[in-house]
Amino acid sequence: MITLYDPVQRSHAPETFLVAGRPQPIPERPERIDMLMQGVAAIGSEVRKPPAIDLATVGLVHDAGYLDFLVNLRERWGHVSQSSDIPLPNVYAIGRSSLPPATLPDAVVGQAGFYLGDGACPVTKDTLAAALGSAACAAEAARLVLKGERLTYALCRPPGHHAAADLAAGFCFFNNSALAAEMLTKGGKRTAILDIDVHHGNGTAAIFYDRADVLTVSIHANPKRIYPFFWGYADERGRGAGEGFNLNLPLERGTEIDAYKAALETALQRIADFAPEILVIAAGLDIAIDDPFKGFAIRTEDFTTIGVRIAQMNLPMTVIQEGGYPSPSLGVNLAALLKGLGA
Amino acid sequence: MITLYDPVQRSHAPETFLVAGRPQPIPERPERIDMLMQGVAAIGSEVRKPPAIDLATVGLVHDAGYLDFLVNLRERWGHVSQSSDIPLPNVYAIGRSSLPPATLPDAVVGQAGFYLGDGACPVTKDTLAAALGSAACAAEAARLVLKGERLTYALCRPPGHHAAADLAAGFCFFNNSALAAEMLTKGGKRTAILDIDVHHGNGTAAIFYDRADVLTVSIHANPKRIYPFFWGYADERGRGAGEGFNLNLPLERGTEIDAYKAALETALQRIADFAPEILVIAAGLDIAIDDPFKGFAIRTEDFTTIGVRIAQMNLPMTVIQEGGYPSPSLGVNLAALLKGLGA
Repeated sequence: MITLYDPVQRSHAPETFLVAGRPQPIPERPERIDMLMQGVAAIGSEVRKPPAIDLATVGLVHDAGYLDFLVNLRERWGHVSQSSDIPLPNVYAIGRSSLPPATLPDAVVGQAGFYLGDGACPVTKDTLAAALGSAACAAEAARLVLKGERLTYALCRPPGHHAAADLAAGFCFFNNSALAAEMLTKGGKRTAILDIDVHHGNGTAAIFYDRADVLTVSIHANPKRIYPFFWGYADERGRGAGEGFNLNLPLERGTEIDAYKAALETALQRIADFAPEILVIAAGLDIAIDDPFKGFAIRTEDFTTIGVRIAQMNLPMTVIQEGGYPSPSLGVNLAALLKGLGA
Repeated sequence: MITLYDPVQRSHAPETFLVAGRPQPIPERPERIDMLMQGVAAIGSEVRKPPAIDLATVGLVHDAGYLDFLVNLRERWGHVSQSSDIPLPNVYAIGRSSLPPATLPDAVVGQAGFYLGDGACPVTKDTLAAALGSAACAAEAARLVLKGERLTYALCRPPGHHAAADLAAGFCFFNNSALAAEMLTKGGKRTAILDIDVHHGNGTAAIFYDRADVLTVSIHANPKRIYPFFWGYADERGRGAGEGFNLNLPLERGTEIDAYKAALETALQRIADFAPEILVIAAGLDIAIDDPFKGFAIRTEDFTTIGVRIAQMNLPMTVIQEGGYPSPSLGVNLAALLKGLGA
């Protein structure tokens, strides 16, 4: 198995994010990389640095205006708020059927509220480079599978599955899983994404929401009481040509392996019906019982069980790191999952 | 002329709101009342305290879930964030065509992001009572016009025109202008709203966006570079049955009286075509040259000019206070406008 990792990903290191309206220490820290690397080492994986990625490649799944915004944000924000190192929106492009559609304004304060979806996507001077490094890992992991590898692992950090085509959110800037799936699709392979992060992969679902050529399936904690709150419900099934090509499987908080396995069967059955040639696994490890977000109660041995069951699909796979936050078991859980998957 | 005012409106007094991501002193202060009252005194208006309003009356223009949220917010927020006296969302129900529609979650943190639209609607323990007092002024001002008064003034504070049916935003909680218009409409009078606040009346427009029975017209600074940023563009004309019954007239920052008068002619022509029986004026005074938001360059004598021109419509009017922030001319500008209107 080949692991993709670029040291530039360490450089993104904001101190805080907003929780219930107050700045709190951010758990999406560079130290996650060390913990995940312990898991990679435990299974003896080769580690490669991916080739650099350009904005045009990231643009396969992201809006040109959004990329332009991220490239220029720091300089523009400095013109309106010299005291605020990290741009935090004070307005948001709230949307619902009762309002007219939101228009993108010119002012950077307005654009921040249009493109930054919440208080959990702080942009430091190093964020763009780190997010590009993260996306580069996903892109190379996909390329290697296209070239014949059976299993690749992209140690993507910052994560990506809450980022939509034109929206950063929830620690995510570029949607690494969507990028891998799009590159595989463009490479001629029918691709499904299985997102096992405890939080709904709302960005990934949104990117493919109107499309039938990429299947998105997510097993996650019921968003009624956990981030991303507004999306991830069972009735979100895709739209237009994409109707029926998104499957959300929300489970209650505290879910243990037995109930989880039942949902996994439903997910894999839908994937089997779709008959993909390659599977992208958006591998959030925050379903672990000791993850600080306390969503599900999945134990280390359960990660192996989950991996083994997915491997029975007998498909080439690229595993994209999503969430999973500092805890004693983060690295061993990764090793358990990858081992189950066949590493 | 009769002025409506309830002292409970003073009680809402948050210290800060977010500007470019940082807390800044909030200009929507109780002291505004003193300044506006000087204007009321200058024209010798009678001042009455309105009868108390109930939630059912506010519910004429607001969603039941939103009202329930505001009633219970403080207690529920205390359960998730004992350190944060003022609920500030950390997530937002961002909406655009590329995302699935946002669903209302159960958790108060999620509901805060659904119902509180930005960082400028801090809810203190006194906010609900003050906002109800403000709405009571608007309701009574409308009732008096229904009973035959030619001109009433509701000293509404907090203001209302950024609040939609299910959304607080921009210092606004209950949409006083929309409530007055709805009560007049229900009272059998064909009603138009002319919003002259420097910020687009996006909440008011949204409340009537799908309806043809109430015309909404707003003259405001181009939202490309000023709040509310995402709404207020000329192409927002209403929807469905309401198509053509919203008119946005954005003007560039720094606009002086000559260009303003041209836009006012366009607005009044559209209103004349609609042929209302009563006019609601959403009277933001922040078009003043010395207003801290520095949107337009309207002088005290211009307020009289504007009032005189509107009065030539020869319609009964209820004037609802919207924005207008501490400046030496706030009270005299109100007096100038009301005098022009015929007070």
